[in-house]
Amino acid sequence: METINLQINQSQSITGYPIYIGASLLKQPELLRKHVAGNQVLIVSNDTIAPLYLDAIKDTFQDLQCDVVILPDGEQYKTLVTLETIFNTLLEKGHNRTTTLIALGGGVVGDITGYAAASYQRGVNFLQVPTTMLAQVDSSVGGKTAVNHTLGKNMIGAFHQPGCVLIDTDTLKTLPEREFSAGLAEVIKYGLIQDLAFFEWLENNIEKLLAQDLECITYAIKKSCQNKADIVAEDEKEKGVRALLNLGHTFGHAIETSLGYGKILHGEAVSIGMNMAADLSMKMQWITQEEALRVGDLLQKAGLPIVPPAEMTPEKFLAAMAVDKKTLNKQIRLVLLKHLGTSVISTDFSGDLLERTLAM
Amino acid sequence: METINLQINQSQSITGYPIYIGASLLKQPELLRKHVAGNQVLIVSNDTIAPLYLDAIKDTFQDLQCDVVILPDGEQYKTLVTLETIFNTLLEKGHNRTTTLIALGGGVVGDITGYAAASYQRGVNFLQVPTTMLAQVDSSVGGKTAVNHTLGKNMIGAFHQPGCVLIDTDTLKTLPEREFSAGLAEVIKYGLIQDLAFFEWLENNIEKLLAQDLECITYAIKKSCQNKADIVAEDEKEKGVRALLNLGHTFGHAIETSLGYGKILHGEAVSIGMNMAADLSMKMQWITQEEALRVGDLLQKAGLPIVPPAEMTPEKFLAAMAVDKKTLNKQIRLVLLKHLGTSVISTDFSGDLLERTLAM
Repeated sequence: METINLQINQSQSITGYPIYIGASLLKQPELLRKHVAGNQVLIVSNDTIAPLYLDAIKDTFQDLQCDVVILPDGEQYKTLVTLETIFNTLLEKGHNRTTTLIALGGGVVGDITGYAAASYQRGVNFLQVPTTMLAQVDSSVGGKTAVNHTLGKNMIGAFHQPGCVLIDTDTLKTLPEREFSAGLAEVIKYGLIQDLAFFEWLENNIEKLLAQDLECITYAIKKSCQNKADIVAEDEKEKGVRALLNLGHTFGHAIETSLGYGKILHGEAVSIGMNMAADLSMKMQWITQEEALRVGDLLQKAGLPIVPPAEMTPEKFLAAMAVDKKTLNKQIRLVLLKHLGTSVISTDFSGDLLERTLAM
Repeated sequence: METINLQINQSQSITGYPIYIGASLLKQPELLRKHVAGNQVLIVSNDTIAPLYLDAIKDTFQDLQCDVVILPDGEQYKTLVTLETIFNTLLEKGHNRTTTLIALGGGVVGDITGYAAASYQRGVNFLQVPTTMLAQVDSSVGGKTAVNHTLGKNMIGAFHQPGCVLIDTDTLKTLPEREFSAGLAEVIKYGLIQDLAFFEWLENNIEKLLAQDLECITYAIKKSCQNKADIVAEDEKEKGVRALLNLGHTFGHAIETSLGYGKILHGEAVSIGMNMAADLSMKMQWITQEEALRVGDLLQKAGLPIVPPAEMTPEKFLAAMAVDKKTLNKQIRLVLLKHLGTSVISTDFSGDLLERTLAM
């Protein structure tokens, strides 16, 4: 037998990109422009967001080949079938490997556009212009891209970092209240997993946030992005600490998958999931009842649900949680609160305690 | 405006994997076994190969969860739709992110299985067990994975390196002559692009290769894999020298895409493409007429076609070549022969010379 050893030198050392945060940034086209190297751009948006902001971005690229794909709005369209419509346009319009995809919209648009960019010709450039609170504080940062499968959320995807993230806080003015609240779930998450001071700041400022106080919103977005950037910098491919960002997500994904995509907002499902994680952490005596109540209280004040829909029986939870990406050797792994503001990945809970939480 | 700079430390330095080459290697299960870390395996094969070798591999993993997907045989099935059938099985059978996918078959099985592994849960382990000459000398090595789009070959994919490549030369005994010849096209390619001595060895040993002389075949596979490993080691993501491996492929992909996938074997299309590249290189006076004839002569002796099908008009070629992955700013870029055994990527040819080659 002959053995040839193939070795690949990956001495790229450090890579990175800027996250721009501020008001009226969509009126500063040079911010996006400097991250486009070729002479082709494809803007991907949805039918809710495109009428509001598409023209502003298109104007920026009028001297380049600038094509557009408008997707229907909703988590139920984050599929391989929708993905193919993006590939169709890229090929029909002759986009080459120097093209840049721009995701203009919420988490669904960002995730699917990012995965299209990761896969088209085995990887092209893409930029994130998130227009929902949830996308601005979480999904646009960190390079996780994916589409859903009917049997599991985000099961098909890639790690593919954007060239930049441009967060224009003005876009939140047109965001429905319910979606704004959904985004706050992920903001509260950062406080819970690793930033007690931020959690307490949120408790003190939740009314101002809901009243769309610009200074408060900008601070919350900046704190969230900084928390996420720190974690991703340490662990891009989720070999360790990055898994903490999934607080509430194992429960939440189970709810989203079981109800059918689009029935509940991702942030709402995560809110319920975080409250369940707090409940289980309390049952394990890691946090006090008072602390668990503070978690549920802040989520509720943010306009979020904290109890699973009645149809989510423990059996449905367990069936859906079995395909979670963190599940190893059929052992469910959950992010739980060791203290308020400190989280761990754990398999230490008993089946009995878990089932009592699932039945809450 | 606030700017957060996200930085990712990629200090993995060097990664790699072994390529095992020899007779009866499928009878040495420990070779594959040591590259499987979890307790789940999914073998992907096709309906031609599975009856011959599937049992041997399944036996190796009888103490693990071992599932199987059998695809229909043929390039026309290298699609997103087929890819989804692999995801369906992975999810229905509850495969987690420690699973290992094993590609047992030719280039189509390897490419699609590799892309499934790159995408499932954003990336899982996979092993290559190539059973055709073409897959053994080329497509199984180097981590290029992809599916086709009706408008362009290999347009959707990822760079995802296997954990190992296991080449059992016994599998060639059952390979149809036409497919064996198709594989030789890629073998000859390595000689043409960077290894004149190997090209001359092939000229002297082509009859023995066609007679399935085991020593000759093993040498040809080893030389091919070593050439490819050297190039991939230097340039995994095809930023430079790796593009030379596409000698003949821009013409060849145009033929495959225009005729419809499955009408001509990939190696046959590459053979025609390499002869066209030699012809254009001769018209540019980079190689002599005698050298160009040597290229065509060796390809023909290997049982390969060297002239495009009559229906491939220059117009059809140009339309299909415009979406080639190497095309930049509408400028077609071709791998051409500077000398016999020395290749370059070039845009130096005139449109007139190119059209004369397309009409050959």
